Order: sequence, then C-alpha cells, then structure tokens
Amino acid sequence: MRHVISVLVENHFGVLSRISGLFSARGFNIDSLAVGETEDPTISRMTIVVRGDDRILEQVMKQLNKLIDVIKVHDLTKKEFVDRELILFKMNVDSKQSPGVEEFLKKFPVKVLSKEDGLWTIEMTGDEKEIGEVLEFLKPFGIEEMVRTGKIAMAK
Amino acid sequence: MRHVISVLVENHFGVLSRISGLFSARGFNIDSLAVGETEDPTISRMTIVVRGDDRILEQVMKQLNKLIDVIKVHDLTKKEFVDRELILFKMNVDSKQSPGVEEFLKKFPVKVLSKEDGLWTIEMTGDEKEIGEVLEFLKPFGIEEMVRTGKIAMAK
Repeated sequence: MRHVISVLVENHFGVLSRISGLFSARGFNIDSLAVGETEDPTISRMTIVVRGDDRILEQVMKQLNKLIDVIKVHDLTKKEFVDRELILFKMNVDSKQSPGVEEFLKKFPVKVLSKEDGLWTIEMTGDEKEIGEVLEFLKPFGIEEMVRTGKIAMAK
Repeated sequence: MRHVISVLVENHFGVLSRISGLFSARGFNIDSLAVGETEDPTISRMTIVVRGDDRILEQVMKQLNKLIDVIKVHDLTKKEFVDRELILFKMNVDSKQSPGVEEFLKKFPVKVLSKEDGLWTIEMTGDEKEIGEVLEFLKPFGIEEMVRTGKIAMAK
C-alpha cells in the first residue's frame, strides 16, 4: 500500500540522509519526498510518499521515532488529510493546437508562465487526481521537461 | 552563498540517501529538498537548496556526477531560472480579523481551502519573495501548522 508519512525533525545536519537511509535499508523506495522549514525555522517537516509492506513500515516508523532529531512521525494515510503537489513543466504547443490547449487548461488550476516560440512553461498546483488528469491529456503534445515537488500533506 | 541544485537521477533504491549523504559529509546543510518523478517515471528530479562554500560545492557536484544513478547535475544559480514553492498552512483568524486578512490575501496567489471555527487552511504557490511577504504579514496572527515543499526550479 501507498503511505504518506509526515516527519517533523530538528533542522540538523545529516538528518535527511539518516531518515532516507532508514527507508532504503528496509527496502522501501521513496516515491517522493519534500522537505522545508516549518513556522519555526529550526524545525523542518518532511512529507514522504512510500510504497511497501505495512508491517515493515510500522517498524521503520518506530525506528524513526527513536532518532534524536525526529520530533514526531505520522502516517497521514490513517487520517483524513489534504494533499497538494506543485509541478512545473515545459511543453511544445504549435499555433494550431494552442486554442484547444488553452480551452482545456481553463478547467484546472494551472498558470501559463511564459509562451516562447511554441514552448510553454506551465505551473500547476493540485491534488493527485487533478495533476494526473492534466498530465494524461498533455502527454501526447510532448512534455519537454518536468519538475515536481512531490506531495505535501496536512491532517484535516 | 545559496545555491539551487537540480539533479536528474535514475529512480533507484537508496539514491536519495546517497545524494543527501554526500552533502552532509561535506558539511552542507540542506535548506530544502524536493524530489519527484519526471516525464519519464524511471527518472526523478531533485531540487536541492544548499548554503555553503562555493569551492566545496563544486567538489560535491563533481562527486555527484560520478554516482552511477546520477544522470545530470546543474547549478541553476548560474543561469536564469524560474522557481516556485508550494506551502500549506493553518492559521487562526477570528471574525474581527477576517475582512482584513481576506483583503490582504487577494493580492497573492493563495487559495483558502477551508475555514472552520476560525481555523483557516491556506494553500499558496509563489516564488521566494511572494511567499516571504505573505508569511511576514500573517505571522502575528499565529500560524498553527505549516508544511512546505521546498523550492523547485527550472532553467528559463
């Protein structure tokens, strides 16, 4: 099963590498990870999306809890949560396709940041379903370059 | 100096921990890191914001380039780039403050996801300057909880 893990950590040196190391030592591949400061700059919050065995994940979470720099670990998948991801991408849109693409994009929370010589740079924020739908539609146009933040999530 | 490093990697097991380990071994603290799939699901892109000595960073980048799973490393700080970050936060807004906060937020690319018993859940996407400005204004209200993706960036 897929899990969204939220880890609150002291913003110390090496903590990211220790935490991601714990997951890989247990055979979990990390689908995405996002880490940034919280309201307190000495504390960071990581949102980690992993796939794997539930029982082993429970052990990993126990180990995480034992790390000195770890303040709190939550498996948000067990609660109601709101999740969002941000993606930036560039795609080719020729003048013929342009009206159709514009029309489609209107339905979604996307922002076209620039259009240069048929290369559009687009920003989108949404939940997994919305982002999946947009990428599915746009794939045939050829996405040139894409960067994603990975999911962040918060208990409701 | 602050650097925004973009690393394209094979989506293999343990690569995140090896890369973050390289930075911490050299004494770099990672301000933020975001990793997610690219247009090709076997390949991920990391955006890492680090602060530290330029000469040592150059060595770290050389070491990164030598890792088998690393496809490409760029220091975006040396180019023109577009950067964005996504944040989610909860804050207390009582009925008196509500009109003033609404008015202020209009100027920014924020979305109020819910308002429940004076606790607002807010999503914002922007560049460093915009996000800094909004957080500066809202801090006195008391931000209850905040999660950030860390910056993602793309060469222009």
